[in-house]
Amino acid sequence: MRNLLGGKGANLAEMAALGLPVPPGFTITTEACAAFLADGGLDLSGDVARQAREALQDIEEQMGRRFGSATDPLLVSVRSGAPASMPGMMDTVLNLGLNGTTVEGLARASGSDRFAWDSYRRFIQMYCGVVLDLDHGDFEDILDEIKDEEGISEDSGLTAASLKEVVARFRHHAHSRLHEPFPEDPFEQLWGAVRAVFRSWNNRRAVDYRRIHGIPDTPGTAVNVQAMVFGNMGEDCATGVAFTRNPDTGTRTPFGEYLANAQGEDVVAGLRTPWPIASADDGTSLEERMPDAWAELVSVMDRLEQHFRDMQDVEFTIERHRLFMLQTRNAKRSVQAALKVAVDMATEGLITRREALMRIDPRDLDRLLHPVPDPCAPRQVIARGLPGSPGAASGMAVFHADDAQALGAEGRAVILVRPETSPEDIHGMHAARGILTRHGGQTSHAALVARGMGRPCVTGAGGIRVDPAKDLLVTGSVTIRKGDIITIDGSTGEVIAGEIPTRQPEQSGEFEIFMAWADEARTLGVRANAETPADAARAREFGADGIGLCRTEHMFFEDGRIIAMREMIMAEDVEGRRRPLERILPMQRADLVELFRTMAGLPVTVRLLDPPLHEFLPTGLRELEELARHTGTDVEHVRLRAASLRELNPMLGHRGCRLGISHPEIYEMQVRAILEAALEAERAEGEPVHLEIMVPLVATGRELAVIRQSIDAVAAAVAAEAGERPHYQVGTMIELPRAALQAGDIARSADFFSFGTNDLTQTVFGISRDDSGRFIERYLEEDIFAEDPFVTLDTEGVGEFVALASTRGRCTKSDLGLGICGEHGGDPASIAFCHRTGLDYVSCSPYRIPIARLAAAQAAIQEQDSS
Amino acid sequence: MRNLLGGKGANLAEMAALGLPVPPGFTITTEACAAFLADGGLDLSGDVARQAREALQDIEEQMGRRFGSATDPLLVSVRSGAPASMPGMMDTVLNLGLNGTTVEGLARASGSDRFAWDSYRRFIQMYCGVVLDLDHGDFEDILDEIKDEEGISEDSGLTAASLKEVVARFRHHAHSRLHEPFPEDPFEQLWGAVRAVFRSWNNRRAVDYRRIHGIPDTPGTAVNVQAMVFGNMGEDCATGVAFTRNPDTGTRTPFGEYLANAQGEDVVAGLRTPWPIASADDGTSLEERMPDAWAELVSVMDRLEQHFRDMQDVEFTIERHRLFMLQTRNAKRSVQAALKVAVDMATEGLITRREALMRIDPRDLDRLLHPVPDPCAPRQVIARGLPGSPGAASGMAVFHADDAQALGAEGRAVILVRPETSPEDIHGMHAARGILTRHGGQTSHAALVARGMGRPCVTGAGGIRVDPAKDLLVTGSVTIRKGDIITIDGSTGEVIAGEIPTRQPEQSGEFEIFMAWADEARTLGVRANAETPADAARAREFGADGIGLCRTEHMFFEDGRIIAMREMIMAEDVEGRRRPLERILPMQRADLVELFRTMAGLPVTVRLLDPPLHEFLPTGLRELEELARHTGTDVEHVRLRAASLRELNPMLGHRGCRLGISHPEIYEMQVRAILEAALEAERAEGEPVHLEIMVPLVATGRELAVIRQSIDAVAAAVAAEAGERPHYQVGTMIELPRAALQAGDIARSADFFSFGTNDLTQTVFGISRDDSGRFIERYLEEDIFAEDPFVTLDTEGVGEFVALASTRGRCTKSDLGLGICGEHGGDPASIAFCHRTGLDYVSCSPYRIPIARLAAAQAAIQEQDSS
Repeated sequence: MRNLLGGKGANLAEMAALGLPVPPGFTITTEACAAFLADGGLDLSGDVARQAREALQDIEEQMGRRFGSATDPLLVSVRSGAPASMPGMMDTVLNLGLNGTTVEGLARASGSDRFAWDSYRRFIQMYCGVVLDLDHGDFEDILDEIKDEEGISEDSGLTAASLKEVVARFRHHAHSRLHEPFPEDPFEQLWGAVRAVFRSWNNRRAVDYRRIHGIPDTPGTAVNVQAMVFGNMGEDCATGVAFTRNPDTGTRTPFGEYLANAQGEDVVAGLRTPWPIASADDGTSLEERMPDAWAELVSVMDRLEQHFRDMQDVEFTIERHRLFMLQTRNAKRSVQAALKVAVDMATEGLITRREALMRIDPRDLDRLLHPVPDPCAPRQVIARGLPGSPGAASGMAVFHADDAQALGAEGRAVILVRPETSPEDIHGMHAARGILTRHGGQTSHAALVARGMGRPCVTGAGGIRVDPAKDLLVTGSVTIRKGDIITIDGSTGEVIAGEIPTRQPEQSGEFEIFMAWADEARTLGVRANAETPADAARAREFGADGIGLCRTEHMFFEDGRIIAMREMIMAEDVEGRRRPLERILPMQRADLVELFRTMAGLPVTVRLLDPPLHEFLPTGLRELEELARHTGTDVEHVRLRAASLRELNPMLGHRGCRLGISHPEIYEMQVRAILEAALEAERAEGEPVHLEIMVPLVATGRELAVIRQSIDAVAAAVAAEAGERPHYQVGTMIELPRAALQAGDIARSADFFSFGTNDLTQTVFGISRDDSGRFIERYLEEDIFAEDPFVTLDTEGVGEFVALASTRGRCTKSDLGLGICGEHGGDPASIAFCHRTGLDYVSCSPYRIPIARLAAAQAAIQEQDSS
Repeated sequence: MRNLLGGKGANLAEMAALGLPVPPGFTITTEACAAFLADGGLDLSGDVARQAREALQDIEEQMGRRFGSATDPLLVSVRSGAPASMPGMMDTVLNLGLNGTTVEGLARASGSDRFAWDSYRRFIQMYCGVVLDLDHGDFEDILDEIKDEEGISEDSGLTAASLKEVVARFRHHAHSRLHEPFPEDPFEQLWGAVRAVFRSWNNRRAVDYRRIHGIPDTPGTAVNVQAMVFGNMGEDCATGVAFTRNPDTGTRTPFGEYLANAQGEDVVAGLRTPWPIASADDGTSLEERMPDAWAELVSVMDRLEQHFRDMQDVEFTIERHRLFMLQTRNAKRSVQAALKVAVDMATEGLITRREALMRIDPRDLDRLLHPVPDPCAPRQVIARGLPGSPGAASGMAVFHADDAQALGAEGRAVILVRPETSPEDIHGMHAARGILTRHGGQTSHAALVARGMGRPCVTGAGGIRVDPAKDLLVTGSVTIRKGDIITIDGSTGEVIAGEIPTRQPEQSGEFEIFMAWADEARTLGVRANAETPADAARAREFGADGIGLCRTEHMFFEDGRIIAMREMIMAEDVEGRRRPLERILPMQRADLVELFRTMAGLPVTVRLLDPPLHEFLPTGLRELEELARHTGTDVEHVRLRAASLRELNPMLGHRGCRLGISHPEIYEMQVRAILEAALEAERAEGEPVHLEIMVPLVATGRELAVIRQSIDAVAAAVAAEAGERPHYQVGTMIELPRAALQAGDIARSADFFSFGTNDLTQTVFGISRDDSGRFIERYLEEDIFAEDPFVTLDTEGVGEFVALASTRGRCTKSDLGLGICGEHGGDPASIAFCHRTGLDYVSCSPYRIPIARLAAAQAAIQEQDSS
C-alpha cells in the first residue's frame, strides 16, 4: 500500500503487523494530501480531522498517556512519507503536543526538568521553521545570545532554567514576528504540522529532487503521526540509523551509527559525529554499551530482511533501554554493495538468480568500471575524511551550489566543497563531479544523496576548514581557492591537491559471478565500439562478443598519417590522391592486423571513412605552413582549399558513402588494407577473422550496390595477388530515414545492417546533437521530451524506423544481421528496445559493455516474465 | 513502330502508306543496330546484308535505275533515325553509289557534267568525314587550294573540269591517309555507311544529347536507305524544311525555308541564308517561284496534319518540279506556338480539350511567364538577327562551349556566341542562358536546339563578326570581349550591349483559354508562396487559389525592423526581448493587413518565425557598431553574442517551434499581430479572412499542443480587447521524418498539415541542400539518383513519408487539410504525386502557379485515363 500510505507509513504498518516494536501511530494517506493540495492547500477536511482524533485516542490508550495531559502527556512526531523515497526532502516535526502546561507534565513524567524544557525549545524551533516559516537562524542567534550571557559554549551546558528563558524568548520572538502567539492548543499544533507536511510536497527542493530522480508529481506525501519516543531522555537512551548489511561493501554485518542521549535528527544532520553501532572495541559501540538493545536490534533487522527479502535501512530509538523501530526501508547502497548483496542473497537462497539480476540498475555498474586514482601515482593528500560515496573525481573546487551548477552547465568538472550539505544544495551536488564536506558521517545528507546520484563523496573531513564566504578551504598549510583543482577519492576518503592519474579498478569476485549469470540470461549480443588494440583488449576483458564499430578514420588522425591524409585532400585529381593513399595503406593495414589479432575468433565490423574531408584539414598557422611545404603550395592556397571544402551543415554534407562514390580511390585503399590485414591476421593466429565491412550514410540501394561492387572487385584483386580468398561480409549503417524506408532494397546488397542511432536520431528529429544543448534542457524541463533522445532511444520515432528497417530488411534477406552501434547501445532502456525488436546485438563503448550485458539479461528476463 | 524503325523510318513508312510522294527506300531496324553494337560493332550480319540487297532491288525497280549502273545509276542516301528525335546528332551520307563509272552515268542521265562531279566530290567529302573518320577541314583546304589556283572565290565558280581535279585530289588524299584506295564498290560504300550510322549512336555528342534530354541508351538507331532525289540538279530543283504552322507563333500558315538548286544539308547547316517558302512578295518564295510544287506541298502538309493530328515539320526536295517528301515528324515549337496550336486544334475539332491540355509540358509555360526586356528601357542595340528561340537573356559573352560550361557550372550567366553552332557545342548551349550566332536561319542547328532546350536564341546576325580565337565579337563600332555583358532577345532578334531591365510579358488570349480548361480539369488546389503584397497580387493574377506559405520572418529583414529584431536577440532576458518585440508588432501587423486585404476571400497560411536567430545578426563592422550603439554595449559584446548563437549545423539547430518554445514571447507577438491584422482586414474588406497559422519544425505532438495552447490564449486576449473573435485554424509543417511518423498524434492539435518537402528531403536523405552541389551532380551522372531530389520529389523516400503522414493524420482527423509548400509544389512530376496522394493543394512561387495548374490538370486527366 505504498502508494496510499507512502513508503514509511506502509513499512511502519508492516512492521507493526510483524509484531516488531514500533511506537503506536497512524498514517494520513497520500489521497488526503492530493485532495488537500487540489483544494488549494488551506484547510484539512472535517473527515481527516475526525479520523485523526479517533486514531489519536488509540495511541493514547496504547501508550497510557494523553495528548495535552498536564501530568503524563503524549507527544507525537509528524513526518512525511511519500510513495517513493525522498530522503530529507520534506518536513518533520517532533515533540508535538508540548505547551506551557504539558511541558511540566513531561518534566514530571521523565523526572528531568532539563529534558522537558530542552524538548520544548526544540519543538518550538522546529515548528517555527517547518510550520510557521520563520528563519531557523534567528532561533540559533537567540540560543547563542543566552549561551553568551551565561558564558557557556555547548548546548549541553544549558540548565533547565536557561532553557526556560530560551523558551520564553523563542515564544516572544515568534509572537512578534507572527503577530499572534505561538499555538498552545496541541490539536492546533497537530493540524498545523499536518498541513505543513502536505505543503512541503511542493517546496522547491522536493520538486527538484523529483525532477532529478524522475519521481512523479502525484499523488503526494502521506503523513505519519506517531507517539514520540525519546532517545534523548538520558544516557540510557540513544537513537541511530542502521543497515542490515554494509551499504558500501555489502558485507553481511549490521552497519550503522548512533548517538547516545540524542534525537534522530542529530544523526542525520551530521552536526555531531556519531559512533558506530557494531563493536569497534573502543567501548563506544552500541553493541558494547547497550548489549540487550543491540541483540534485539540485530534480531529485528534479521526478521526485516527475511520479510522484505532485501537489505534494510532502519531508524531506531532506544528509550531507557527499550528499543523502538521508527522506520525501515530497502537500503540505498553503493553498487559494490548492491552487487555483493544480490549475489550473496541469491547464494543464501533468499532470492533467485533472476531476481538478483533484476536488483541492479545496469547504469550503476558504470561506477565499478571507471578508473580510480592510480595508487602508485605521487599524490599530495591534503586531508582525510570518511568514504561517503565510492569513486574518485577531480575538478575545480567551488563552495556554493549555485557556482557548481553554473560551471557544471558550462561543462566544467567541479567538486562541491561545503561545511555540510543540506537539501538546498541538491542542484549543486547534481552538477558536481564530487562532493566534499567537513562535517557529517557516512549516513549524513551529503553521503546519502551522493551515493544515490553516483557521485564520489568524502564526508567528515574534520581537518579542513571550509569558508564559503571567502570561497576557500584551508587544511594545515594548504589553501585551496575557488577554481583550484582537487581530487577526492570517495572510496578511501582522501582529499588530494591537483589532478592525479587514474587506473582501472579491479573487479570483485561477485562481479564475475554476477556477469556470468547475466550472460546466461541474455540472448542479445554485446559488442564494442573500438578502434585501438588497447580498447579492443579492454572490450574483450569486459566480455564483449566482438567489435560492432571500428571507425577507420580515427587511425588517420595519428601523427605521420594526418599529413598524408591532408596531402590527399589537397590533391587536385585522382592521381594526386592515389600517391598519399598508397603511403597510408600499409599503416592502416598494420593497425588492423593488430586489431584483428586481438579479436581473433570474434566478429569485427570495420566502417569505411565517414567524416567529411574538411575535418582532417588543419586550422593552426604552423600546421597550415607544414602542409603548404609538403604539398609545394603556400598557406593561402591551403586556406582556400579548406574554405572550399567547408560546409554549412557538415552533418548533412559530403561524407560517408558520398565520399566513397565521388572519391572511389579512398575506399579502394581502405578495402585493400582491411582485406590484406584480415589475411595476415588469419595466417598469424590460425583462426578465421570474422570480418564485416560497413559502408556509412547510405540512403539508397544503388549507393550500396555501387560500393559493394567495388569492394568485391578489390577483393578479387587481393585474392589473385595473395592466392587466398579473403572472407568478408558487406553491410551498411542504417542512419538515415530514407535508408530505413528503403531497407528492403538496400538489403539486396547487404549482409548486415547496423543502426547508427546517433545520426538517425539527428535526422529523424532534425536536431543537430552538437547544437541541441540550447533547447533540449528546456524541452526536458517542460516535459516536451520525456528523455534526451540522444541518451535514450526514442522508441516512438527513431524506434519505429529501426523496427521498420528490420522488418523490411529481413523480408528481403531472412538471415540479415542486425545490430546497433550508436551511443544508445550502452543505454539500458534502449537495449531493452533492441531486445524486443529482435536485433542480434548492440555495440557500445568498452566501459559500457557490462552495463549492456546486464541490461540485455534484464530485457530477456522481463520478456519471459511478461509472456 | 517508332521503336523498331526509328521516328524517321516509321514516318516515312506511314507517309508512303498514305500514298504521299516519298522516294522509295527501306529501313534497317534499331534491333539490327543493337545486335551490331552488342556484337562489338565490327561487321553487319549476313541477314542484314541479304535483306538490304533485296530491298535495294525493289528501289531499283521503282526508280527505273540500277545501283552501280554506268548509264543511269541509282544513288541512295543513308540516314540515321532513332526512336526519339535527336536532330543533327548522328550521321548521314548522301549521294552514295557514286564512283569513277557511275559518275559518268549520272552526268549522262542528268545532262550535267558539273552536277555529277559536284555530287561526287560532295559524296567523297561526306563519306570520308562520316565513315572513314578523316578531317573535314583537309578537304576544305584542298577545295580552297584549287579555287586559289583558278582565281575564283565561290564554289559555284568551279567548272566540271576543276571538280574532276577536286575529286582526283580528294581520292588521292584519302588513299594516302588510309593507305588504301577510296572504295569504288557501291555495296562496300553502303555497308560502310550503315556501320558508321550504327556506330554514331555512341559518339560523344549523341551520348551527351541523350543524357541532357533523358533519352534511353537502348535500343539504338535505325538506318534509312532511300533513293536520292536531287534538289541541286538545276534551277528547277530545290530543297527545304517546312512547318505546317508557324513554330514560333503557332499561326495557321505554312512556314519554312528553302534553297533553290541545293541539297538539304545546305539548309540545315546554315551556311547559305535560305528564302521563305510562303510568299514574301519579293519573288523569292517557293509559292511564287514554283507554284505547282507549292500547291502540292501545302496539300501534302494538310494531309499530314490531319493524319498525325499534330503540327508537322517536314523536309522536302523538288527534283525538276517534282515534289518528294523526305521526312515528317511532330514539329518542335516554341511554347507560345504550342499553346496556340493546342487551343486552335481543339477549337478546330482536330483534338479534344483534354488532348490539348496533355500537349503542353507544364515546365515550358515557365518561358511565357518570365520577364522580357522592358521595351521602354533605353537600349543600345548593337546588332539584329533572326528570332531563333523566344525569350530574353543577359549574361557574359563567351565564345567557346567549354567556357560556357565552366562558367555556367560556377553559376554565372553566360551567352554563348558562335559563328554557327554544331553538335559539338551542345554542352555549352545547355550551360548558357542564351545563344547568339552569326550564321544560320530559324531552322538552323542553333535555333532548333535552343528551342528544344528553352534557351533564348538569336541566329543569322549577319552584322556581327565573331572571332572565337580572340574571344571577341565586333559589330560596327562596338567590340564585345569575353566577359562583357550582353542581352539577346530571341523574340525580336535584337542583340543589346549590357543588361537591361525586364518586365512581365503579356499573355495571349490562348493562354487564358488554355488555363481555364486546365482549371476545369484539375481537382488539386494551387496556392502561392508569397510574403509581399506585390507577390500576392501577382499570385492572384496567375490564378492562385490562396497563399500556402507566408514566411513572416521575411518582414523582419526590412529596414527599421532588423534593428529591433537584433535588439531582441541581444537581450539577456524575457523582459529585454519584449520591448523590441513591441516595436515590431505594429509593423508586422500592418504588413499582414495589406496581405490579407490583397487575398480577401482566399485562404492565407501564415508561418511563424522559422530561421535560427543568428541569421538576423549582422557581420559587417558598421552594422555591428550600430547594433552596439543601439543596445548600449560594445562591438566585442555583440560579436560574442553572435558567436554564442552560431551553430555547427544550423539546419538542424535552434529554430522553428524550438524557438517558439524557448522564447514564447516571439510567437506571442507574432500571433497577436496576425490576429489583429485579420480582424482589421475583415473590417476593411467586409469579407472574412481565411487565416491559417502554421507552426514550423514540429517533431512531436506535444510541441504543437503547447504552442497551440499559447495561440489560443493570445486569441482569447485579442478577442476580449477587440470585442470580436478572430477566426483561424492552427496547423503545422510536416518537414521532419519524426513528424511524419507521429502525424496521428500531431493531428490532435492540428487543423491542417503542410508538407515542407525542402526540409523533409534534407532530413530524409540526410543531405544539406546547400552542401549537396559537391556530389549530387556526380550522383546524377552515375545514375545513383534518377532526379535531383530537391527538384523532383523523391516519391520512394520522401513520398512515402508524405503518404504515411497523410494517412495517419486523416485517421485522427478525417477533415485534416493537406498541402505541400516546398519547391516541389511547382514541379510537375511532384504535383502528379501530390494529386495521387490525395493532398488538397500545392503551394509554389507565383511564377510557377500556371505550371502547377496545368500539371494538376494533367495529373487528373492521367488518373481518369488510367482508371
